[in-house]
Order: sequence, then structure tokens, then C-alpha cells
Amino acid sequence: MPNYEKLLKTYETPFYLYDFNQIKQAFLNYKEAFRGRKSLICYALKANSNLSILSLLASLESGADCVSIGEIKRALEAGIKPYRIVFSGVGKSEFEIEQALKLNILFLNVESFMELKTIEKIAQTLGIKARISIRINPNIDAKTHPYISTGLKENKFGVEEKEALEMFVFAKKSAFLEPISVHFHIGSQLLDLEPILEASAKVVKIAKSLIALGIDLRFFDVGGGIGVSYENEETIKLYDYAQGILDSLKGLDLTIICEPGRSIVAESGELVTQVLYEKVAQNKRFVVVDAGMNDFLRPSLYGAKHEIEVISSANKGGETSLCDVVGPVCESSDTFLKNIHLPPLEQGDILALKKVGAYGSSMASNYNSRPKLLELALENENVRVIRKKESLEDLWRLEKECLNG
Amino acid sequence: MPNYEKLLKTYETPFYLYDFNQIKQAFLNYKEAFRGRKSLICYALKANSNLSILSLLASLESGADCVSIGEIKRALEAGIKPYRIVFSGVGKSEFEIEQALKLNILFLNVESFMELKTIEKIAQTLGIKARISIRINPNIDAKTHPYISTGLKENKFGVEEKEALEMFVFAKKSAFLEPISVHFHIGSQLLDLEPILEASAKVVKIAKSLIALGIDLRFFDVGGGIGVSYENEETIKLYDYAQGILDSLKGLDLTIICEPGRSIVAESGELVTQVLYEKVAQNKRFVVVDAGMNDFLRPSLYGAKHEIEVISSANKGGETSLCDVVGPVCESSDTFLKNIHLPPLEQGDILALKKVGAYGSSMASNYNSRPKLLELALENENVRVIRKKESLEDLWRLEKECLNG
Repeated sequence: MPNYEKLLKTYETPFYLYDFNQIKQAFLNYKEAFRGRKSLICYALKANSNLSILSLLASLESGADCVSIGEIKRALEAGIKPYRIVFSGVGKSEFEIEQALKLNILFLNVESFMELKTIEKIAQTLGIKARISIRINPNIDAKTHPYISTGLKENKFGVEEKEALEMFVFAKKSAFLEPISVHFHIGSQLLDLEPILEASAKVVKIAKSLIALGIDLRFFDVGGGIGVSYENEETIKLYDYAQGILDSLKGLDLTIICEPGRSIVAESGELVTQVLYEKVAQNKRFVVVDAGMNDFLRPSLYGAKHEIEVISSANKGGETSLCDVVGPVCESSDTFLKNIHLPPLEQGDILALKKVGAYGSSMASNYNSRPKLLELALENENVRVIRKKESLEDLWRLEKECLNG
Repeated sequence: MPNYEKLLKTYETPFYLYDFNQIKQAFLNYKEAFRGRKSLICYALKANSNLSILSLLASLESGADCVSIGEIKRALEAGIKPYRIVFSGVGKSEFEIEQALKLNILFLNVESFMELKTIEKIAQTLGIKARISIRINPNIDAKTHPYISTGLKENKFGVEEKEALEMFVFAKKSAFLEPISVHFHIGSQLLDLEPILEASAKVVKIAKSLIALGIDLRFFDVGGGIGVSYENEETIKLYDYAQGILDSLKGLDLTIICEPGRSIVAESGELVTQVLYEKVAQNKRFVVVDAGMNDFLRPSLYGAKHEIEVISSANKGGETSLCDVVGPVCESSDTFLKNIHLPPLEQGDILALKKVGAYGSSMASNYNSRPKLLELALENENVRVIRKKESLEDLWRLEKECLNG
């Protein structure tokens, strides 16, 4: 627990605050879970790519799961080793592929035959052999939000088994491709173990056929980690998850790659915000805070519910009543939580949205010309800035240079 | 029509391209529609606040509807006069109110009693009289998307009639407040005239009572403009809209303020993007392009459908088939349009998402560490840059400074 009183004297709301000890522990839990086996935990940057978080993870020998050249460069900036970086995503541009190959990362997770041929062409131009993995879409329902479900045939991700086999054979024959891994990832925020194990078993079978075909597989990339309990849902136990995957891999000498993002950072983060106004309209109570949907999009985009805690309030006590907590952005979708019970609040009272470490700052925008927020790290009771607040001038710098163009 | 061939030789996709003549015409149409009457068109910056667009509108004597101090400063940077700027929004911070008062803008649209008292307190400190308008929530269903419907009692916006009257009386008595306007705004993307006229009639009645109470009203702020025909829906005719409002105002000597945003810029803009890959999985065809949901959020956030045009293709002819057009971002929500008919496409073919001038670049994020896009203006067949593409280093500049902190 940070010393909020001191914190709020030094920093203006709204800001993100991350508990670095918690991030460290979450990462080490993954390492521990897969300890019985050669494994590499590649943190998925899309969840939160703040350089200081990456630097902390780099110090723990984390790898990185990246989905753009921007993320690869972030990982490298923070000290993550190239040989621990994998590059995933359905839409890698030629520029990104070329850069990734030049940077000599571990491998590229390939999502289509056309991409495979594009990588081959670029590798040939560079005169190198590109290490690749192929993402198999196991057509399994991950039972998560449709926006982040990725392992059904109607999703854009991966290739079906038959095509994967053709791609592996193509890659094996190529002088510029080196297929070293199979990959699957059926979705994010998974709360049910069964679909993961089903997918794993399916891909293990494929891996065995590939080895029988003489393909020198070295990695088994199981995609993202387990879900987070946002609303006290029961989630998967990390031990069961790791054990299940280890079991399905029996008899295969492959290094496991696991790409957790959300489950490493989500619970570590809170968004500290201030009450600007209370208003009651036709018996409906609104608490207007100074953070908005541009700062934290999950409630608007996914209908996500994040607990709100009263950190400090001028009113001691007072009966709670139903209210909506809303932001200052000019849309009705700028609502963080509807119909929750909160005590009477005054201007300047401090609230915190909980478990916002993942897909919070990484999805922030400048909508309504609002600068991106200050980000703070709490580490052994010390607080330090890990991202300065954007200035207003930052918002239009790239436009102002063009103004009289 | 721009010369795409030349354009694509000079600029890399993806980029936004705006037709400035179209923006100019759309703005002048509003001016013309309200010509019979004292009126002020305040462009709503939230739709698109690019400085060059604002500068164009400033040259046409546009005012500005702003919802943050960031937007106010943008308007001023672009040459919009302070006396044509109004400041709206449910969550103005004390800092923003103080700045707005110091900058001597036309007035603040007040959304709650608590806000009114806050403005009074700040005006007192500054030793000035703050010009204000009160936003009345007429509790009328605008029949638009729930996310952008703002005139129902369950929305966070405005105050009900009874409270508005109390606030006006309070303001009239205050030595630091000067109530000069009434305001309502029932939602964005309105396609139905009836609710607007109903709201207008309701607020006209209130305005008359206020004048009878001795309040020196000078403005009647009717909120945002008319909806845009995104999918060939029938929309409101500007003439009917203006005429309806003018009719409802008969006998009142008030200056009309209208705050169109979307209808000024939406149709002028397109998002030009390149085909990265085609993939077919289990009979489902995907066209992967280089623009993503971080560049253009409307399809993910609102389920918006924007027409996609093939600008240039290596394949001439070929039978069209059903496909989904998706971006490179690692979420299934990164889908621009589902089940549309497109001809066979190849890598490098160019597509354009249409009518993306509003709520496109203004809602863009850096999700997946993707830089914000280049923006171009087309004006009398000349193309110029109005926003440079963000660099990768821009993404982490504010973090890197903290890295060894």
C-alpha cells in the first residue's frame, strides 16, 4: 500500500500507479510454474509496454512477445535480449519483417502462407535464414469475450492444420527459412482450462507429425497466459495450467514458450482519479471524475467492470447510495461503472479504479485533446515516475510544424 | 479526386487524407442555412482537431465548441477568436475553468450546480464576472447510438429544467456570474429531425421564462449538427433543420449558436491503406491491411460500418467474393468490415475507408506501439502534410527519460 497522502501532495490526478513488487512476483510465478522444463516466459508487451516495466522484467530474464516493430524496439530499449524476442501478429509489414530479421530475434510467428513467402523473399534479399514458427488455429472456443477470442475458424488468426503442414514442408525445403516452433493462442482473459488443454493436445499431435516429417522443432509456443479475476470470477490456477501443458507435452523435447501479458500486470495497476463533481438528475446520481475513457478504454470497448475504491474522502461515513462513475469526455460511453454503491463524495475526494495495469495505458488515446497520463511505480514503498505526463504542446507538435506549410 | 498514383509514390500508407474544399463547403452550408438570423457556427473540435483544419475554419470565421483546455488552446493556436469559443463538458477541472476564464472565451456551458459554484468561486478569485450558459437536459430520446445519445435523463449531461431555473436565478444574483445563454444537445449522429425540434421547443419555453425573470439571455445554443449518411441512411436536410430551429425561436431576439463537428468533417476524410496479406481459412477470406483499430476505432467501439473502396489493384477484374477486412492489431475486434464483396486482391493493392474525417484521427491511440498516422490535406488538387507521422521514438520519449530514474 502506498502512502496516498504523500503521493497526492506530490502528483496531480489522474495517474496510473503500478506495484512493481507485484509485477515481479507475477512473473516469477510463471517461471516457477514451468520450472520442471526448459521454458521461456515471453511477456506480451501489448498489455503494457512501459519501458520501466520492461526493464524490470528484463532483469528477471523475461523474453518478449511483440506484435509490431515498435514493440520489438521497446523490448530492446529496455534490455530484453534479442534471442528472447518473438514477433507475432497477422499484419507484419515488409519493413517490420526486414527489421526483425536484421535484429536477429528468436523467431517470427507466421500467420498465413502469404506471410511465409514474404518472409522468405526478404530473408533471401538479406542472405540469411529466417527462424520461423507457424501459428495454428485449433478452432476451439476459448469462451472469452468475442473481441479477444482468437482461436475460432472465423477469427483472423493462424492457419488451419492442413495449411500449417504445407507451410512447414515449404519452409523446410526453403534455403531461407528455418521452421523451429509451433504456436497457438486461442484468446486472452481465459478463465477455463479445458479449451487450452484441448488446443495443446491438438497441437502436440501436429508437432509429432512435424517431427516425423524431419522438421527440427525446438519450441512449443502456447500463447498467452491465464485470465485475471476482475470481478471475483474463478480463474485458472497457474499450477494446473502449467501442469496440464507439461503433461500434454510428455515425450517431446521442446522448450515451452509462454506469452503472458494481462496476468503479469493487470492486478498491479490502479488508476487514481479525483472527484470533480457530484450531480443528481431525476434521482440518478453521477460522480464525475477527472479520468476519462481516453485514459482507460476497457469499460467502453469491452464493457469491462473494474472495482472502484474510495482512497480518501472528506466525508467520514455517510450512507452509501447507487451512482454511476463517469469521466469528463463528451460521450455517454465515458462511464467507468454503473449502479455501484458509494458513500457521499465531495470535490477532491480520491478514487481508484483497480486492476487496470493491463490494457490501460497501452490503449490510451488523446481523444478530446487530453494528454496521456503520468505513470508511477511503487517499489518497496518508494514511488518514482516511469512516464511523464504528456504536455498540451506534445499533442499538436506534429501538426504545428505543418501549419503554414 | 486526388491523383492517387502520384500520392502513393510520395507517401507511405496508411494515412488520412482530407478534402479541404469539402470541409469548407460543409461549413459554409451551415452558415448559409442560418443566414436569416444572427448566428455563430462553433465547430466541435472533438470530431477532428487537426490545426490545419481549424485554421481553414478560422479563416471562414468559425467559432469553436471545446471540451477541454487542450481543445481551447488548439482553437487559439489555429487562429479562432476567443470571443467565438465556448467551453462545454461535464468534467471541467478547476485548472481548466481558470484558464478558460483568463482567456476570456465567449462562455462556459455549465453542466451541474456544483460546477456553477466552482466557476463562481474561481471567477471571484480572479475578480471577474464569468459568462455562462446552462445545459438543459430535455429528456428526449435522440434515437441514435446509446454511446452518443446525451439528452436522456439517464445520461450524465446537463441538468433538468427545475434545476436549470434555480441555477439561472443563482447566477443572476451572483456578482461573479453572468448568465447569457441556454444550451441543449441531445446527441450526435442524429438522423431524425423530430426530437431536435421537440427539444428546441422545450428549451425555447424555458428561455422565455428566463427572460421574464429578468435574465439577459443573448444566445440560444442548439448543440451539435445533423447526422452523416454513413450507409446511405436518409439524414436530415440542413435547410429543414435550420428552418425548424429558426421557427421555434420566433419572437426571441437571441443569437443562435450551432456546434456541428461530425457533419463538417466526416465525409471529407478517407483512410488510405495497403493490403498486406490475403488469407483463406476454412472457406473464410480475410484481407489484412496495414491500418488498424488503433488508427480508426469506430468499427470496434460503435460497430460503425464504413464503406471500403478499392483505389488501385494489380488484378484488373476478377470475380468479387465475400471477405472480412481486418487490421494487424492482435484482437479480433480489429475488424473494419465483415462480409463485404471485394475482387481478388494482392499485396500492395490500395484500399480506402470512406467518410472517416470525424472521430478518426481524434480517437487514435498507440495500441500495439503503433505510431499515429500521417495526415494529408487535398486542396485544389494540391496535397500537403497537415500532421507528420509519429516516430517510434515519440512513443517512448516520456518513458525513456525515466528509465534510470
